[in-house]
Amino acid sequence: MGKRIAYLGPPGTFTEEAALLYDKGAQFIPVPTISGVASAVSSGMADEGVVPIENSLEGSVTDTLDLLIHDSPLLISKELVLPVGHQLLVKPGTVISDVKVLYSHPQSLGQCRRFVERILPRADVVAALSNAAAVQDMMESPTPSAAIGTRRAAELYGAEILAKEIQDQVSNVTRFVVLAAEDHPPTGNDKTSICFSFDDDRPGSLVEVLQEFSQRGINLTKVESRPSKESLGRYFFLIDLEGHRQDTPVGEALDGVRRKTSLFKVFGSYPRYK
Amino acid sequence: MGKRIAYLGPPGTFTEEAALLYDKGAQFIPVPTISGVASAVSSGMADEGVVPIENSLEGSVTDTLDLLIHDSPLLISKELVLPVGHQLLVKPGTVISDVKVLYSHPQSLGQCRRFVERILPRADVVAALSNAAAVQDMMESPTPSAAIGTRRAAELYGAEILAKEIQDQVSNVTRFVVLAAEDHPPTGNDKTSICFSFDDDRPGSLVEVLQEFSQRGINLTKVESRPSKESLGRYFFLIDLEGHRQDTPVGEALDGVRRKTSLFKVFGSYPRYK
Repeated sequence: MGKRIAYLGPPGTFTEEAALLYDKGAQFIPVPTISGVASAVSSGMADEGVVPIENSLEGSVTDTLDLLIHDSPLLISKELVLPVGHQLLVKPGTVISDVKVLYSHPQSLGQCRRFVERILPRADVVAALSNAAAVQDMMESPTPSAAIGTRRAAELYGAEILAKEIQDQVSNVTRFVVLAAEDHPPTGNDKTSICFSFDDDRPGSLVEVLQEFSQRGINLTKVESRPSKESLGRYFFLIDLEGHRQDTPVGEALDGVRRKTSLFKVFGSYPRYK
Repeated sequence: MGKRIAYLGPPGTFTEEAALLYDKGAQFIPVPTISGVASAVSSGMADEGVVPIENSLEGSVTDTLDLLIHDSPLLISKELVLPVGHQLLVKPGTVISDVKVLYSHPQSLGQCRRFVERILPRADVVAALSNAAAVQDMMESPTPSAAIGTRRAAELYGAEILAKEIQDQVSNVTRFVVLAAEDHPPTGNDKTSICFSFDDDRPGSLVEVLQEFSQRGINLTKVESRPSKESLGRYFFLIDLEGHRQDTPVGEALDGVRRKTSLFKVFGSYPRYK
């Protein structure tokens, strides 16, 4: 039996696509919330969990980061980067001139606005709770209609792709992470994600921390400050860096960061997605 | 006649609440997209525009940042911070035990999940295109129903607030900015937002830039890196700092940053929202 992988469902979401990309042979468990995915893994119901972490359409990135910062003993063992492609789906045989209704998740609609204005200017737009639900609603509709959905949803629900890659921008990607009890052993081409905060916010605290990396020639691939939930004036910093926490220079830099910060957490080291 | 303010509409959205908070006496122009709000201001149809920039429910933050980075000659002249409160709205006289259907924007539903699971576990959930549309749909529904919406939408559409502040987390805030042809003159308690990028991504580039601020005792209130659209390996950095670009130390630091970066843009200086 394959690995059991929980993911932010239902089937037909972009997170399911990411999970399939990661391990086609696994046994998949769709879970409706990000914290539910983490619970499935930490309780042993699943071996690993796949959740969106950046530029997501279906789940809030904030939920994943809050989980990693506050709630979860899980680590990031892998990252997955998926181009987010929207497709115009119809019941097989439907032609565009017949389409009266368009089903879409509001955010996906926003990302395909130009296409919809040009090609379906007179369609009634009906909101759906997820990209998968939009396709289900379209397939069940008695009126000739279309849905904005994924390739996978077309497969799952027997829909036909009438127009491909209808999003306004070409290079829209979502980053997903695999959560597990352990992170990944070194591969020679790794990334490490960390989070830290300071008790005070005097100028220069962040610079001193970043120097731990720059002095050792360690490149940062992401730097982000997020307001902390506890008090409005305080911030968490989220940093992704090149290298594994078991590499000597990275390990030394992380020790230095730990000494200069009040809260410090390593989210995990994992192979870099090319 | 008052100022003409374009905002991300329709009426009843959180952005409208922010615009009303900013200037109750203005003449308001709802516009359905963030780029449309900017066009309304740059074409002279409106004097100023209000759009969400952080932790938004209705518009994508990415849209606002992309606009400021790539497309718009407009500057930030003000920031507005609004607690995001969700209310359970019904037609006047409806009691909770009668409610069969719940209308909600999918993201708002996600933020009120615990309340909905406890109080309306058996309601059919119907997605709406915006928080305002959820309330309109509820008011027009022949079935006894409820909607997740704003206080303002309750006023506008004649709905009754059956339960207040039903979001799972108390401290959910959204930050909005006012876009205008000019930014704000110094007030003594200001912030400045800037954006920059590097031609190469050698370790230490960011540290050298941040030292321009730390050396002069200038505090940063936000640091964020975002992947650039043109090429996947390159990043934009977005920084908010304390002080006005016309203050001598801030002006000197910004000159230093300009020399050390390839792309450099000041989004504006504006009074700090307490």
